[in-house]
Amino acid sequence: MKIIITNPSGITKDQVLDLRHYGEVVVYNDTNTVNYADRVKDAEIAVIDCFLTPITSDLLAKTPNLKFFSINSTGFDKVDVTATMQAGIIASNVPHFSTNSVAELAIGLMFAVNRKIILGDSEFRKGLIAVDPGTPEQIRYSGFDLTGKTLGVVGLGHIGRRVAEIGKGIGMSVIAYNKSNKDLPNVTQVSLQELAQQSDVIIFCLALNKETKEIFTKKLIDSMKTSAIFITIAGLEMVDQEALKNALNSSAISGAGIDTATSDWVVIKNTVLTPHIGYNTRESDENMGRIITENIKAYLRGTPINQIA
Amino acid sequence: MKIIITNPSGITKDQVLDLRHYGEVVVYNDTNTVNYADRVKDAEIAVIDCFLTPITSDLLAKTPNLKFFSINSTGFDKVDVTATMQAGIIASNVPHFSTNSVAELAIGLMFAVNRKIILGDSEFRKGLIAVDPGTPEQIRYSGFDLTGKTLGVVGLGHIGRRVAEIGKGIGMSVIAYNKSNKDLPNVTQVSLQELAQQSDVIIFCLALNKETKEIFTKKLIDSMKTSAIFITIAGLEMVDQEALKNALNSSAISGAGIDTATSDWVVIKNTVLTPHIGYNTRESDENMGRIITENIKAYLRGTPINQIA
Repeated sequence: MKIIITNPSGITKDQVLDLRHYGEVVVYNDTNTVNYADRVKDAEIAVIDCFLTPITSDLLAKTPNLKFFSINSTGFDKVDVTATMQAGIIASNVPHFSTNSVAELAIGLMFAVNRKIILGDSEFRKGLIAVDPGTPEQIRYSGFDLTGKTLGVVGLGHIGRRVAEIGKGIGMSVIAYNKSNKDLPNVTQVSLQELAQQSDVIIFCLALNKETKEIFTKKLIDSMKTSAIFITIAGLEMVDQEALKNALNSSAISGAGIDTATSDWVVIKNTVLTPHIGYNTRESDENMGRIITENIKAYLRGTPINQIA
Repeated sequence: MKIIITNPSGITKDQVLDLRHYGEVVVYNDTNTVNYADRVKDAEIAVIDCFLTPITSDLLAKTPNLKFFSINSTGFDKVDVTATMQAGIIASNVPHFSTNSVAELAIGLMFAVNRKIILGDSEFRKGLIAVDPGTPEQIRYSGFDLTGKTLGVVGLGHIGRRVAEIGKGIGMSVIAYNKSNKDLPNVTQVSLQELAQQSDVIIFCLALNKETKEIFTKKLIDSMKTSAIFITIAGLEMVDQEALKNALNSSAISGAGIDTATSDWVVIKNTVLTPHIGYNTRESDENMGRIITENIKAYLRGTPINQIA
């Protein structure tokens, strides 16, 4: 039985040795849509980098022996799940491998937006060495102390709960919106309207689905404090983007940090925009390799876990 | 008796009203070295923005009636203390007004350096929308989870103690170097050598004096982990700057965040450089106004506080 790892995906040498107890294991570093078929055609099991080779019905047609694959992602929007099931293939994803990493990036964006760290680095490099008290620069750079302020967490899934924990750890009061009651210590669940009005910082951690699409409306954005900061590591599909852009451009709110923006956001004022790096730490990589290895072994035992097809 | 406030310095309208119980109070917004003498010459008490009008013997010679002044700073390197004392003037500074703000900037710099937030914002604006797993960008952007890692705090003064608290709050193990034993809960005091070797992040919070000048030697820098991050909100005079620059340029350490750099640092790799903005929050401003008002009232009672001359 042949196991193909199309690209590293966090799998360590020790994990490869472990998998060799179950069959032949071949590891590639540079599989792409062109060389994919030739490499995977004999495999029963594959670890597929769904970012580099999205799993379409065309791709699946090239690997008639494939019985199981694990992707290297929590989201499986790059997998044609129907085609996978029609091909009789079982598939697993990698849930929660990056919970803490994504939460920490959200917190990092909060600090960066609040304290104008990107503006500061940029202007320092242009010659602004010190922002002295009493100068116009002092006002441009003024932020606020996070300790004692109210952090509003939207969505208390794995990431939202970790964001709430860190927020409490740095001395913030934490309120949260979540559909069901999570009964967390020192987190007061409130309505979205109360959260929008009361928060000094909002961190958006909700998953996208039919109910959450554009759940953060213009009315909610318009009720935010003028000093408030909006952070999202989730997606902007859950937010009225035009209203948020207008609020930022008119300084109706103070700033935003977005790890999941589209290119039209670069013209919006007072934003920190990062290229979807929330997941990206060595710990996430280690978790990824471990969970993919577990996915393969569970399939081989006949009891698949993290199954998406 | 006349009290002059040369520039705002965080003093509120209520505080001005309070001070009017003691004498005539005149507030200016735009005092500089040219108009200073004319404005302050009749005053017995002045609040002086020592960044805009450094207090030299020349300046003091222009205000023969001055008996007391408060500056708007903790540091008093912009005050000629000897000349002040020779002129028979009592002077106060503003200690600890920005402890939490500076500590929070240090933490913000740690997140920014670790997660490459500035690089991310810059490259997003040039078209890098998403850093996918398995790409060379993933490796360039990879950071580490702060939770569970070791934070080494150098100097357990007010700022260092607050940095230690926040570090613990985000789940880090905290070790610290301090000359005397501070006996803080969950902070293990170690030698500088142990701190340099064991820390994943070093945050430098030591005050500059004869003993601390270049205390962080090349040997200490060379013993840091290759993945380690160096942050300072204090000053670079306490560090062997050439050794630190070499360590950064050769990737012997992973990155640095500096709120107190000089312009020669802009060519050094893997740095986040901010223009001395640590103090800059509205809470610091509020503390500043409150402490300056207390300084004046204490002088008027005949029991000066925060006295520097």
